[in-house]
Amino acid sequence: MGTFYGIGVGPGDSELITVKAVNIIKKLTILYAPQARKNGLSFAEKIATPYFTDSLTIKRRHFPMTHDLAEKQQSWNEIAAEIIKDVKAGNEVGFITLGDPSVYSTYSYLADIVRDDVPIKTIAGISSYSQIAAEVSIPLTIDNESLEVIPATASIDQISQALDVNDNVILMKVSAKFEAIYQLLSDRELLGNALLVSDASLESESARKLSEMAISEKVPYFSTVLIKKQLRF
Amino acid sequence: MGTFYGIGVGPGDSELITVKAVNIIKKLTILYAPQARKNGLSFAEKIATPYFTDSLTIKRRHFPMTHDLAEKQQSWNEIAAEIIKDVKAGNEVGFITLGDPSVYSTYSYLADIVRDDVPIKTIAGISSYSQIAAEVSIPLTIDNESLEVIPATASIDQISQALDVNDNVILMKVSAKFEAIYQLLSDRELLGNALLVSDASLESESARKLSEMAISEKVPYFSTVLIKKQLRF
Repeated sequence: MGTFYGIGVGPGDSELITVKAVNIIKKLTILYAPQARKNGLSFAEKIATPYFTDSLTIKRRHFPMTHDLAEKQQSWNEIAAEIIKDVKAGNEVGFITLGDPSVYSTYSYLADIVRDDVPIKTIAGISSYSQIAAEVSIPLTIDNESLEVIPATASIDQISQALDVNDNVILMKVSAKFEAIYQLLSDRELLGNALLVSDASLESESARKLSEMAISEKVPYFSTVLIKKQLRF
Repeated sequence: MGTFYGIGVGPGDSELITVKAVNIIKKLTILYAPQARKNGLSFAEKIATPYFTDSLTIKRRHFPMTHDLAEKQQSWNEIAAEIIKDVKAGNEVGFITLGDPSVYSTYSYLADIVRDDVPIKTIAGISSYSQIAAEVSIPLTIDNESLEVIPATASIDQISQALDVNDNVILMKVSAKFEAIYQLLSDRELLGNALLVSDASLESESARKLSEMAISEKVPYFSTVLIKKQLRF
């Protein structure tokens, strides 16, 4: 029997992957790559491509982006069954995921399904928020400060609570809810403490102060807001 | 003029460093390495040693572990002045730090002192908590869940508040305060939801359920407690 590896490929730059992840990708026989759209190449696959060997079999699998949990679970179950079969046949099998596999990743669901049947190993990756802090050379947290990571898909009450009790807050996936987030930060007089970073580590990367933006602006899909109460941007 | 690089070397295993960090270490002329004790080799330096070139000059500098802020600031200022001089003389200068340079790192203080005088770049690293989650293949956070990172050196009230409002809490640096943390988790009936991970990614690594530990146990220096409200360990 082989092993199933969940591999974080980092935030975007192919160099922001660990040496361990590269070494494991090179010894895989089968690699599962997520596809957001049918027939599309995933962002995670693009990042990892420089490390693929000629003998690697790539299995692109579509993970539906839907709020229908039953539909998602059906797709996870089907892919997990295939992975179990491949590992039991003696293959070293990988699944690549953007950023860190332990942070908001589809990998967590796959791992939960396959872990009773085959050995699994998780290879940590650089998370998008870690890269955002690095890009602007501003710490996420220091001393006795706390740091909260929360997706903008959480309720405004939960986000407000996070701002109440933390020195540093990272708001993930803000693009679909930017207006409500902007309004909340404005109401709490925190616009001056907030930075919007988009496409971290990519050529299209940008970092903008929220105090210099308009509430109606459209922000890129890969956008995160970093709020630091002890710092004015 | 050269550049000053703050480089995260990850949690312990020399392979858990990014390809970018390796490439930058290889082109440095001078590397500053922190020393907790005078004449000692730091843990960060041990991790990075496989990537040192023969021509690299290593400058080990002592950062006092004290609660005396003035003493710490004096040492940061002295080291920062030396770094500025080296970078202005045309050197590519690095400073290595355990884990991620954006998370509870002395690098943040050095960066703040030197950033007006020389160009700085921060190279993200795998944080200890990211590695802990990977070691046990358990997600830090999924879906709409929140994640808070807080050091055990914060007040018990703050830690209690973190447990009130978050699905997932990472308690860093618990060794000096283990009894109080254990008592808090016991009072809140969260011992069953808590895992203590020590020396992540090292040979001495261990992961233990808090529900199977005694309050009086002595825990290793590099110990972190992961609390997941939605999961019984």
